[in-house]
Amino acid sequence: MDINVLYVFDMIGTAAFALSAVIPAIRKDMDLFGIFTIAFVTAIGGGTLRDLLISAPIVWLHNMTYVYIIIGTVILAVIFRNRLIYMSESIAFFDTIGLSAFTLIGIEKAMDAGYSVLICIAIGTMTACFGGVIRDTFLNKIPVIFVKEIYATASIAGGIVFFSLLNVLPNTYVYVITGLVVFVIRSLSKRYHITLPTVQLKK
Amino acid sequence: MDINVLYVFDMIGTAAFALSAVIPAIRKDMDLFGIFTIAFVTAIGGGTLRDLLISAPIVWLHNMTYVYIIIGTVILAVIFRNRLIYMSESIAFFDTIGLSAFTLIGIEKAMDAGYSVLICIAIGTMTACFGGVIRDTFLNKIPVIFVKEIYATASIAGGIVFFSLLNVLPNTYVYVITGLVVFVIRSLSKRYHITLPTVQLKK
Amino acid sequence: MDINVLYVFDMIGTAAFALSAVIPAIRKDMDLFGIFTIAFVTAIGGGTLRDLLISAPIVWLHNMTYVYIIIGTVILAVIFRNRLIYMSESIAFFDTIGLSAFTLIGIEKAMDAGYSVLICIAIGTMTACFGGVIRDTFLNKIPVIFVKEIYATASIAGGIVFFSLLNVLPNTYVYVITGLVVFVIRSLSKRYHITLPTVQLKK
Repeated sequence: MDINVLYVFDMIGTAAFALSAVIPAIRKDMDLFGIFTIAFVTAIGGGTLRDLLISAPIVWLHNMTYVYIIIGTVILAVIFRNRLIYMSESIAFFDTIGLSAFTLIGIEKAMDAGYSVLICIAIGTMTACFGGVIRDTFLNKIPVIFVKEIYATASIAGGIVFFSLLNVLPNTYVYVITGLVVFVIRSLSKRYHITLPTVQLKK
Repeated sequence: MDINVLYVFDMIGTAAFALSAVIPAIRKDMDLFGIFTIAFVTAIGGGTLRDLLISAPIVWLHNMTYVYIIIGTVILAVIFRNRLIYMSESIAFFDTIGLSAFTLIGIEKAMDAGYSVLICIAIGTMTACFGGVIRDTFLNKIPVIFVKEIYATASIAGGIVFFSLLNVLPNTYVYVITGLVVFVIRSLSKRYHITLPTVQLKK
Repeated sequence: MDINVLYVFDMIGTAAFALSAVIPAIRKDMDLFGIFTIAFVTAIGGGTLRDLLISAPIVWLHNMTYVYIIIGTVILAVIFRNRLIYMSESIAFFDTIGLSAFTLIGIEKAMDAGYSVLICIAIGTMTACFGGVIRDTFLNKIPVIFVKEIYATASIAGGIVFFSLLNVLPNTYVYVITGLVVFVIRSLSKRYHITLPTVQLKK
């Protein structure tokens, strides 16, 4: 795939992930520094964990665009905070683009570093999901993706599709189809409130 | 010590640590992905922190056996979840084997990397205990090993025994005795409800 | 600046940060191991994150002085715990020295590693603040610096002053003025209960 397209989606995802932290942080009475930090950690947490695990340089330390995008997003989000409450549909839309982009970038980086298929899928999923896990931990909540959302599952499904199609279709198609699979699974499950099963213990 | 024996114990410990997360995750209404993730993090968290600190390659990224064992353990644990409640004795038994094995592996890796005695003991303890700390943090609880269990203490005691005997006895004995010390201290303290002292503040 | 002075302040900060964890850990009924671990993580957490991010060797793995200082601090703090309650002014004083020292050390290390100005300020702030964030997370609280304290903000202000003066004044002055800026902002905001603004959502 043209890497620049992926890079644009990456930036959209970074902004959307930062945005996802602003309203919950305000609700927890955090001050402006707290709001910014939570937004920052949510946006870069997944990529940081990925880079630490695969011993790659931490991407946002070397490319300031991420930092600028997060700063800009937080400033705008705080100013327009009362409108954001009514924009949850749009925010979810961009967040899902971020999920797709982060999954693809994670897989690509792990593959370039020579890891096995299963590990590449795991790293794609971590890249996409770990930021939200830290966000919820700092907000003193059980991470939402562990409890009820089909979120990581969309990312895992994308990873499986990616490696099923790799070397079968041209790379551009593999990337586009994977991104769409993640996007569609996440969007449909959100819209129709489809959740993963939980299991019960006998009373 | 024959490294293969330690490796077998390592795998038993990995399964036991993964297992230790399944019932608490079910009780917190986590979905199947959440259960798996908590189990995974509990099993590999200590080793991952160790490898990050000593700049070693992350072990489970390169040896898929860990991943397969965790997947298999979670599947079986979810299927037989109602029996697990009555098996806490057996689970604790294997968990304690894991504690011993992880302590030894952590010490060995840190020693090979040339760290001082105190740091090797600390890294052995982290390898054995950090997974449980992340588990409890994600479950939104104060980590249990900070509050009432003699768990890390068994690991630290093992480390002290290890370096007291090193270069005095043959390595095989050092490993076996250390493993037994950890196992016995943990088992006895659990059985007889021995806890470390807490301290009180004057009212 | 004479690096040895900074090193002395670093040690004072390490002790103060360890100390800051002891009373809250006792209040949460932690046992002696729990108290020590929380103190340890609070004291070395920021530096560890910094070293992981910039791929430097983890400092406390190679310089045992940190470990000894933390052990000694915790022992003394537990023994004199009932007096500590009446010493919060003095503890805050040393904690603020630690904040200044850790900020400077973080900036210096990041600068030596060749990072950009904004990243150096961020790494200085993380070095100074991340230990407290982990402490509060393990204590199962929302990190205090996200909610009401001017703490990180003092560190950020110091970073801005540092790079404003660098190559303008001799290095010794840059270090001293930066340290004083952090110290004064933190001290005044604490004394006069100045906080960063929070924002409200429309009802």
